[in-house]
Amino acid sequence: MTAAARRDALRELVRAAELDALLVTDIVNVRYLTGFTGSNAALLVSAEGDTSTRLATDGRYTTQAAAEVPDLERVIDRACDRALVTSAGEAGVRRLGFESGHLTVDAHAALVAVASKETEGLELRRAPGLVQRLRAVKDEDEIDALRDACACADAALADLIAAGGLRPGRTEREVAIDLERRMREHGADGPSFDTIIAAGANSAIPHHRPTDAVLAQGDLVKMDFGALRGGYHSDMTRTVVLGPPADWQRELYDLVAAAQAAGREALAVGAEVAGVDAAARTVIADAGRGAEFSHGLGHGVGLQIHEAPALSATGAGTLVAGMTVTVEPGVYLAGRGGVRIEDTLVVRADGAELLTRTGKELLAL
Amino acid sequence: MTAAARRDALRELVRAAELDALLVTDIVNVRYLTGFTGSNAALLVSAEGDTSTRLATDGRYTTQAAAEVPDLERVIDRACDRALVTSAGEAGVRRLGFESGHLTVDAHAALVAVASKETEGLELRRAPGLVQRLRAVKDEDEIDALRDACACADAALADLIAAGGLRPGRTEREVAIDLERRMREHGADGPSFDTIIAAGANSAIPHHRPTDAVLAQGDLVKMDFGALRGGYHSDMTRTVVLGPPADWQRELYDLVAAAQAAGREALAVGAEVAGVDAAARTVIADAGRGAEFSHGLGHGVGLQIHEAPALSATGAGTLVAGMTVTVEPGVYLAGRGGVRIEDTLVVRADGAELLTRTGKELLAL
Repeated sequence: MTAAARRDALRELVRAAELDALLVTDIVNVRYLTGFTGSNAALLVSAEGDTSTRLATDGRYTTQAAAEVPDLERVIDRACDRALVTSAGEAGVRRLGFESGHLTVDAHAALVAVASKETEGLELRRAPGLVQRLRAVKDEDEIDALRDACACADAALADLIAAGGLRPGRTEREVAIDLERRMREHGADGPSFDTIIAAGANSAIPHHRPTDAVLAQGDLVKMDFGALRGGYHSDMTRTVVLGPPADWQRELYDLVAAAQAAGREALAVGAEVAGVDAAARTVIADAGRGAEFSHGLGHGVGLQIHEAPALSATGAGTLVAGMTVTVEPGVYLAGRGGVRIEDTLVVRADGAELLTRTGKELLAL
Repeated sequence: MTAAARRDALRELVRAAELDALLVTDIVNVRYLTGFTGSNAALLVSAEGDTSTRLATDGRYTTQAAAEVPDLERVIDRACDRALVTSAGEAGVRRLGFESGHLTVDAHAALVAVASKETEGLELRRAPGLVQRLRAVKDEDEIDALRDACACADAALADLIAAGGLRPGRTEREVAIDLERRMREHGADGPSFDTIIAAGANSAIPHHRPTDAVLAQGDLVKMDFGALRGGYHSDMTRTVVLGPPADWQRELYDLVAAAQAAGREALAVGAEVAGVDAAARTVIADAGRGAEFSHGLGHGVGLQIHEAPALSATGAGTLVAGMTVTVEPGVYLAGRGGVRIEDTLVVRADGAELLTRTGKELLAL
């Protein structure tokens, strides 16, 4: 889908919210709607059409904005949001929506001041999550981008294992750097978030940061990582054992794998997100480990590593074909070790499509 | 300075703002005040003292928060900010400041709802930038961390040049990956922002992202990069020429170098930030190139790559000893090429201390 088509889809939502225009301040949303990849911009999307839609950015990006967004009028002003409120007022906009889930209290106050000083009859209205609603459902170009990003991560892990990179004596930090380097070799622009490599007792820390801790024989090694490619993020977790697994390690692994499979199977068009979380969580709770699964089951993934929908007990809404989500249950035994298994998948009418293809059998290295 | 001493310093500002407590929601500020390095947390800093100060985070970080912040009471709740408003109400807080430059309009509305439902007489008040004001002035431990980060970047660039890594035939992307790898080898946790490598006409794009464009003989090559180490960010730009420089390249370089020297010399305790910007800008404007220097002169740098103070024409305030800032004028000739030269420096009573030590003579490779 082209950026122009996305803006057209957004216009439907803008009109349905009874707005004349939407001020988009979240830079990720600006990228989604225009293709602009700079770090400072805002977009005024008029309900009328692209002729009265404007991109604002600052002087560092004059050339880049012209190259990336030739089809929209551009305003060069460091205070992008304020410049576009002025522009909206001049264009006769009266009901201007703003991204209330993104704009800060102070930034909002500044826009209200501009509106009351420079424009007549312009009213700022809360309009949270309109672009996020579109972004939650990916088009096939986006799914292709995510598939490529996931393939980078799969290939990097396969290389790492084949090269004997997961072995006693290396540090968590060395493994993380090695894995990130291999993702780049396979075409990643970089890691999609700070790589988590957690060995031994550290694997019981859900979001452990790699340290100089040394991998040892008998350790569980949990690896949560992803590739960023063309703006899209992959996300995968695998847990392996160095050497033959102890009985408790195998039991823990089998439990998490069963929960993860149940979560994947629950991914169906129309399924409640809380129900998907419950499908996996029940497996773990039934084994008496509910308290040791201390986070949600998964999240949407795309231009951001965490985006809508949230697959959690408190999440609301249902799955739609084209949503891309992670399924990542974990059980963490403090002081001993933990296991998490995570895939990125696409919700499809005929069952979820797996984007992260690395096998999920317990690997003893 | 310890985290506890920072909280004590903050309490002075909280009391001066006539608040009973401050709700800190900016995760970087939480790290500064507690040492907590997770990705989701909030902090309630009571004016009374640490016994009524609380850190909130979610279940993924229970173990990590206990290890990193053993000295504060901890609340485990995914909705960190809301849990702390409830906690403040229970503790009898009436005037609760919030970070209005960080909290979104929707998050603020949710806190107001909690306050009106669960607490009696608790009022949320705007309190922007209190922690930022402290963070702008670094203590010697922080300056040491920044010096180390800058040294990583210096060493990586020296290695890259010594290895012949800047040569015709390589792509911008290859050079960026190479430079980032060398920073890690010298102890960086990663790059402090997306490395900019811009060759030939691309060097005229101030914030260019590395592409598959191939470096060619005669190109200006602009490199803007930094190392992240222990949470602190270095920031440096150097521009070199591949082969003997053309006259226009040397003239452009000399102009920017003169402006950069003027900016560095203007860094004095008590100097107005707008005056520092003007000191460098005047040099470029006098040469008739004012319009081609399209951004501010520099910015504070520390736990974030961009923080207070801003060195720009519209910036307000004066420099204080211990501030760490960049000085980075640039002149960009669209379609031909650009030069930027940037250092990270500490404002000291006896003149600025240079943290980025790579030489600034025009290097012809």
